[in-house]
Amino acid sequence: MIPYQKMTKEELLKEQAVLQSAYKEFQGRGLKLDMSRGKPAPNQLDLSMGMLDVLTSQDVLACEDGLDARNYGLLDGIPEAKELYAEILEVSPDEVIIGGNSSLNMMYDTIVRAMQFGFVDSPRPWKDEKTVKCLCPVPGYDRHFAISELFGIEMINVPMTPAGPDMDLVEKLAAEDESIKFIWCVPMYSNPQGITYSDETVARFASMKTAAPDFKIIWDNAYCVHHLTDTPDRLMNLMDACKKQGTEDRVFIFASMSKISFPGAGIAAMAATKHNLDFVKQQMSIQTIGFDKIKQLRHVKYFKNIDGVKAHMQKHREILEPKFNAVLKKLDEEIKPLEIAEWHAPNGGYFISLDTMDGCAKRVVGLCKEAGAVMTGAGATYPYGKDPQDRNIRIAPTYPSVSELDQAMELFCLCVRLASVEKLLSEMN
Amino acid sequence: MIPYQKMTKEELLKEQAVLQSAYKEFQGRGLKLDMSRGKPAPNQLDLSMGMLDVLTSQDVLACEDGLDARNYGLLDGIPEAKELYAEILEVSPDEVIIGGNSSLNMMYDTIVRAMQFGFVDSPRPWKDEKTVKCLCPVPGYDRHFAISELFGIEMINVPMTPAGPDMDLVEKLAAEDESIKFIWCVPMYSNPQGITYSDETVARFASMKTAAPDFKIIWDNAYCVHHLTDTPDRLMNLMDACKKQGTEDRVFIFASMSKISFPGAGIAAMAATKHNLDFVKQQMSIQTIGFDKIKQLRHVKYFKNIDGVKAHMQKHREILEPKFNAVLKKLDEEIKPLEIAEWHAPNGGYFISLDTMDGCAKRVVGLCKEAGAVMTGAGATYPYGKDPQDRNIRIAPTYPSVSELDQAMELFCLCVRLASVEKLLSEMN
Repeated sequence: MIPYQKMTKEELLKEQAVLQSAYKEFQGRGLKLDMSRGKPAPNQLDLSMGMLDVLTSQDVLACEDGLDARNYGLLDGIPEAKELYAEILEVSPDEVIIGGNSSLNMMYDTIVRAMQFGFVDSPRPWKDEKTVKCLCPVPGYDRHFAISELFGIEMINVPMTPAGPDMDLVEKLAAEDESIKFIWCVPMYSNPQGITYSDETVARFASMKTAAPDFKIIWDNAYCVHHLTDTPDRLMNLMDACKKQGTEDRVFIFASMSKISFPGAGIAAMAATKHNLDFVKQQMSIQTIGFDKIKQLRHVKYFKNIDGVKAHMQKHREILEPKFNAVLKKLDEEIKPLEIAEWHAPNGGYFISLDTMDGCAKRVVGLCKEAGAVMTGAGATYPYGKDPQDRNIRIAPTYPSVSELDQAMELFCLCVRLASVEKLLSEMN
Repeated sequence: MIPYQKMTKEELLKEQAVLQSAYKEFQGRGLKLDMSRGKPAPNQLDLSMGMLDVLTSQDVLACEDGLDARNYGLLDGIPEAKELYAEILEVSPDEVIIGGNSSLNMMYDTIVRAMQFGFVDSPRPWKDEKTVKCLCPVPGYDRHFAISELFGIEMINVPMTPAGPDMDLVEKLAAEDESIKFIWCVPMYSNPQGITYSDETVARFASMKTAAPDFKIIWDNAYCVHHLTDTPDRLMNLMDACKKQGTEDRVFIFASMSKISFPGAGIAAMAATKHNLDFVKQQMSIQTIGFDKIKQLRHVKYFKNIDGVKAHMQKHREILEPKFNAVLKKLDEEIKPLEIAEWHAPNGGYFISLDTMDGCAKRVVGLCKEAGAVMTGAGATYPYGKDPQDRNIRIAPTYPSVSELDQAMELFCLCVRLASVEKLLSEMN
C-alpha cells in the first residue's frame, strides 16, 4: 500500500474505481449498523441485572444513619452513596451531592443556576453579565456544547493536544477575558478522543489565573473507572491540586453510573467544595425534596465499595476491549499505511476519534450512511456543529457486536479511503 | 362548654388558669411529636414493598414497544407509563411526559424554562419581562410559593373559598394585568385545606380572559387519587373544559407517585397539549437523555392500570382515614363548641387546615413546640411566609400513629384554647 499523497493521478483514479466498485457492493448488502452513540451493549447491561435482586420486599430499607430510604428526606443523598462516590471521585463525602439518574442533567442544572443566581463567588447572576463565554476543548462532547448554545453562552474552541487542552491558550484566554466563565472538560478518556489530561495540564488548571472571579472548571469525569487495558491512564486529582493553590472553588466534578450500571437508571453525582455546595443546596432545596434514595441504596448494596465498582468495570472491559481492538485493528490495517487519517488508541472510555484529511469528514459520514452505517454526525464534536476543518469523526464501538463492527469498520475504512481519493483528485484539477 | 367570646373576663381568667396548669402538665411529659410535613407513615410504605419484587434479574426489561428499558432513550417516558398516567390525569398519552421522581422538580423546571425561554405562546422569555407576577390561592402549598420567591416572581394572594379560589378576583386580576403569568393550584383536596375546586370554578378557569397571552394554570393534581371516604370528591377535567373553549394551551398538570408508592422513589408526570410539550421537549432534550425507565416499568408492572392504583389507594385510605378522624374528632369535641376556630373536613388529601381567631396562629404553633409537638410553621401556607391574619395552621396527620395523634391533638387543642383566651383577655385590657 502506497500513501495516497504519493500516488499519481492515474494511480488515484485506478484506486477510486476499485473503491467505488467495493462501495457499490456494500450498498447492495442492506446493512443496518449504528456506531453513532455511546450506548452500552445489551450484554453489558446484563452484568448489572443482579442489582435488581439486592433489595426485595423482605429487606429493611434503612440507610446507615437509620433513615428510611423509602420516605422523604436527604436532599444530597444517603450517606453510604456519598461515601462510595467520594471514593470514586477522590474527594471527601461532604464534597458530594448525589443526584438523579443523569450527570448531564446535573451539569445542565449547574449552568441554569449559574445563569439565574451565579455561583457562590459570582459578582452577579450570569444572566446579568453582558456576555458569558466558555472554553470548549475540541473535539469534545456535543451535549456539553448544546447546553452552552441553549443558554446563549458563546463558545471558544481550544484545540486538544495529546496531553489535554492547549493550556497555553486556556491560560491566555482565561487570564485576559473576564467574560470567560468556565471550561467544559472530559479529563479522562476524553469524549471523543480518549485522551487523559497529563499531570502538568491538571496542575496548570489548578494554578492558572482567571480574569473572572467565579471561573469554573466543569470536570465531567464520565469515564473515571472505564479502563480498557492492563495499563490504564491515571488522572491527577484536580481538587487536591487546586486546594494546594487555594483555587478549589473553581472545581465542579461530575460523574454517573450510566455506563457502570444502567443508562438512565444509574445514579449521578456532583462534587465541589462545601463552600460551593452549601450555596447550591440553598437553591436545590427549592427544586426538590430529594432524589431516589432506594436506587442509591440499591447501588451501594450491589457494588459495596470502590473495589466492587472496579471488579464490575473489569467485566465491562472484557466485553468492550475486543470491540475497541477490532476498530483499531481495521484502522491500522486499512488506513494507517495510506497516511490519510490520524487517531489515538485510548486506554479507556467509550470512543475512538479519527481525523481525516481536511474537508473529508462530512463526506465520509455521508458515504457510510448511504451504505447503511450510521456514524455520529460530522461536526457534532465541535461547538455549533461546525468542525472548521471538517475532519473529525467520532466512532462509538460499544453497542454493535464484534462481527457487526468488523463489517461497519470495513465500510468505514472504505469510505475514508474513497473520500480521501476524491479530495486528492479534486485538488489536482 | 360556653363559646369563649361569650365569657366574662372572670370566666376567661379562670379558664386560662385551668389551661395553663394542663399545659404545664403536658410540658412535663417530654413529648416528641411531629405533625409538620405530609410524610406517609412507615406502614403506608410497607404497602408498596411488593414493587421491589416485580422486576428481578430473571426478567426481560423490555417496554411494550420493544425498547430495552435498561438502555438510553425515550426522553418522555416509556409508552406504558404514559398510558397509566394518561388514565390517572384523564388526558391522552401523547399529552404526558414522565419525569424523574419529583413533580416539584418538574414544576420548578417548568418555571425555569419559562424564565429562560418562555412558553410556546410567550412573546418573550419571562426573564425579559419587566415584572412577572403569579396568583397564589391562600392558604396554599409553601413549596410552590418558594419557587416563585426564588425567581423573584411577585405573588398575589387570592383567598380560597369552599369552592376553590375566589374566581371573581382571579378573573379580574388575570384580565387586567398582563404581567400576571400563572396561578398555582392544588385543585383536588387542596394543600392545606382539603378543598376540591367546584365544576363552576374549573369551568371559569377554562373560559376566563387573560391579559397575558401565555397565561398558565399550574394544576398540581397531587392528590387526585388520594380519597379518604366513601363519598370522594370529583374534580372536573380542566383539559377537556379548556379544549371546549380553545384555551387548552394554558393547562399544565402535574402529579407524582410519591404518596402512592414511595416518596422520592416514585415517578412524576406532567401533562399539557402536544403544542406545549413539543416546545418543552426541545429544551428537555438538551437537559437529559431521559429519566429512569426501569423504575417506570416497575411501577407499571406493579399497578398495571388505574384500577390497580385505585385498589392500592384504598389500602392507604385504611391507614389514613382513622388518623384524619382522630384529628377531626378532637377538633369537634374540644374546639367547635368554643367557636374559636374553623376548618374543613376533607374527603381526601394529606392535610387538615385550621383557622384560629386572627392573630393566634403563631402563638399556637409556638406553644405546641414548647411542649414537644412540631407543627408546620405558622405563615408557611402563605407567600413570603406571611399570613396577614396570622390565623392559618396546617395539620399533617399522616406520619404519627393514632395514639400519638391523640396526644398531639390533645395538646394542640389546648394550645388553641390557651392562645384564644389570651387574645380575648388582651382585647379586654
